[in-house]
Amino acid sequence: MDKVRMGIIGIGNMGSVHIKSLVQGLVPGMELAAAADSLEEKRQWAKGILPKGFPIYNEGSEIIKSGKVDAVLIAVPHYQHPPLAMEAFRAGLHVMCEKPAGVYTKQVREMNEAAAKSNVVFGMMFNQRTNAWYRRMHELVQGGSLGAIKRVSWIITDWYRPQAYYDSGGWRATWDGEGGGVLLNQCPHNLDLLQWICGMPSKVRAFCHNGKWHSIEVEDDVTAYLEYPNGATGTFITTTADAPGTNRFEVTLEMGKIICDNANELTLHRLSTNEREFCKTARGGFDRPAAAVEKIETDGSNEQHNGVLKAFAGRVLRGTPLVAEGREGINSLALSNAMHLSSWLDKTIALPIDEDLFLEELNKRRARKGS
Amino acid sequence: MDKVRMGIIGIGNMGSVHIKSLVQGLVPGMELAAAADSLEEKRQWAKGILPKGFPIYNEGSEIIKSGKVDAVLIAVPHYQHPPLAMEAFRAGLHVMCEKPAGVYTKQVREMNEAAAKSNVVFGMMFNQRTNAWYRRMHELVQGGSLGAIKRVSWIITDWYRPQAYYDSGGWRATWDGEGGGVLLNQCPHNLDLLQWICGMPSKVRAFCHNGKWHSIEVEDDVTAYLEYPNGATGTFITTTADAPGTNRFEVTLEMGKIICDNANELTLHRLSTNEREFCKTARGGFDRPAAAVEKIETDGSNEQHNGVLKAFAGRVLRGTPLVAEGREGINSLALSNAMHLSSWLDKTIALPIDEDLFLEELNKRRARKGS
Repeated sequence: MDKVRMGIIGIGNMGSVHIKSLVQGLVPGMELAAAADSLEEKRQWAKGILPKGFPIYNEGSEIIKSGKVDAVLIAVPHYQHPPLAMEAFRAGLHVMCEKPAGVYTKQVREMNEAAAKSNVVFGMMFNQRTNAWYRRMHELVQGGSLGAIKRVSWIITDWYRPQAYYDSGGWRATWDGEGGGVLLNQCPHNLDLLQWICGMPSKVRAFCHNGKWHSIEVEDDVTAYLEYPNGATGTFITTTADAPGTNRFEVTLEMGKIICDNANELTLHRLSTNEREFCKTARGGFDRPAAAVEKIETDGSNEQHNGVLKAFAGRVLRGTPLVAEGREGINSLALSNAMHLSSWLDKTIALPIDEDLFLEELNKRRARKGS
Repeated sequence: MDKVRMGIIGIGNMGSVHIKSLVQGLVPGMELAAAADSLEEKRQWAKGILPKGFPIYNEGSEIIKSGKVDAVLIAVPHYQHPPLAMEAFRAGLHVMCEKPAGVYTKQVREMNEAAAKSNVVFGMMFNQRTNAWYRRMHELVQGGSLGAIKRVSWIITDWYRPQAYYDSGGWRATWDGEGGGVLLNQCPHNLDLLQWICGMPSKVRAFCHNGKWHSIEVEDDVTAYLEYPNGATGTFITTTADAPGTNRFEVTLEMGKIICDNANELTLHRLSTNEREFCKTARGGFDRPAAAVEKIETDGSNEQHNGVLKAFAGRVLRGTPLVAEGREGINSLALSNAMHLSSWLDKTIALPIDEDLFLEELNKRRARKGS
């Protein structure tokens, strides 16, 4: 095989972008081999830009059974990600899944288990991991030279959406259609980066406000407080209603502080002494450890979706690394599940969450529409 | 009267600064007339810089009864602020009180009631209100042209203190000596500015960590979530252990966003349309309201403590405005009391708080030392 034959399931916002990228040859090692959507209008759009006779199906299952593809890219509504991925695993196809991995971790855990038993490549579309500044932040924090994390703060309120966005699809921003609001639709990237850079918290206390700024039944305003296994604390703040929003991600460690502004600027305040040591040995009551400030340089590369697909092809063809393993998708979902559950039950939630309880609470909300 | 004769009660960190300022003639309309401290060492220090025979007493009560002063400045440990202030009111003396107003609002409410019945001037040492950038922020937010507040975030973690600070006095950072940690000692200023600029929240959920970074019995790490009467939300994050810390105060309103960095830089993002209106009328799902960015100019004045004292003298002599009315001291204390109570009871607290319950919980902690 010198090119991965890709079938794209779902020709919506993201599926159509991926089709265009592959048609334009923007992803080395990958070619478009089939597409599917249950809506006639979407299929017509695809026919308009693809060669005559190109395989376009009504259902993802038809692509999976077609024999025309080596892999599928799943870009359908969230609830369908795990069942389609598992169907593809059974057919021996490689799978690239759009975020979020699914809507509830119980289902995603089954998907991960199926992936582990199969012999295929399973990747997750966490395209923001290709961003040079986030990659550097990951290296700096996880590299260890800055010591343990003490505090995390991410104000990520620049996901502005007017009401028209929510009115564009009946399934949007409903418990039954998407399984959540800003946490499920916009924030899977941020929650993935949060755990990729800082690790998973052990406790979450969140305050989700449903339909606060828009006429929707799910949350559009969230403040979450996090506690990490080592005692570090954090906050994660998001909304689709702040204008202009903020994107400021700050991590304080024993040896300094990293600030990432607007996903394209990285400042490091580096201490010469570990603060934990300084605290115990300083003589003066108002002494402070000296810090040197540096703007962090990066390679500037930010390939986004096509970078993720290129790496996926590389893994299939040559065994090179993925941008994000499919099994890692469960982490950001576990975070949003914990935030939802904390808010629904009005209490602090320990991770891993009670997956059955979460599903029960989610299903209550799916059942009473418009609630 | 052409000068207010001031008696300073307490010759500690702040009292000694005020004595020096008055001796150097830095406060127009005010002169030092007496000083008091219960510690011989502090009185000796004062004798060393004051003229021979200058009235220096052991107790504040002696100044109050001396007949030598028109006003007293109370700069003793927090618990003693209200009783001394009330004693001064009874003697017909004007009172300038160091922050915090006291340790629990029940006591401070009595002080305020006594002040209201007296005919004297009562001011609170909220010197950070003299800062030009905070004054502009107050004008911008309270002025109303930016619409209602939607979100507040203050990361104020630049109160670094090593262990040596806490070891410098046995009363420091104890429930019985100070009644709290970073919230009672360092943050009264920030909590006052928060309420002065954004108004009082109606609900508080806080996570206070006691002795997390230092060997102390009170809190040195706090994350608080706030809800305002109009539905706006906020976070307030503080510690004495982050190095370097952050001071970033951000307020999002219907017509834009104000960011105050490091108490000396103010950026306004101003919308041309009210976001609430834009949200409902925008046609495109990804439309965003246009924002113009401006650096806000200020008069640059930042008189701090001497500015507060100058205004106090002005009020006594000419009836001109104070920097902060004494009765307003209860607001920042109500905030820290609510944060403590929320953390102690592990639940959300509505304001106004149950003052008897707070005092009961505080007294439990005063009784079991080292807890």
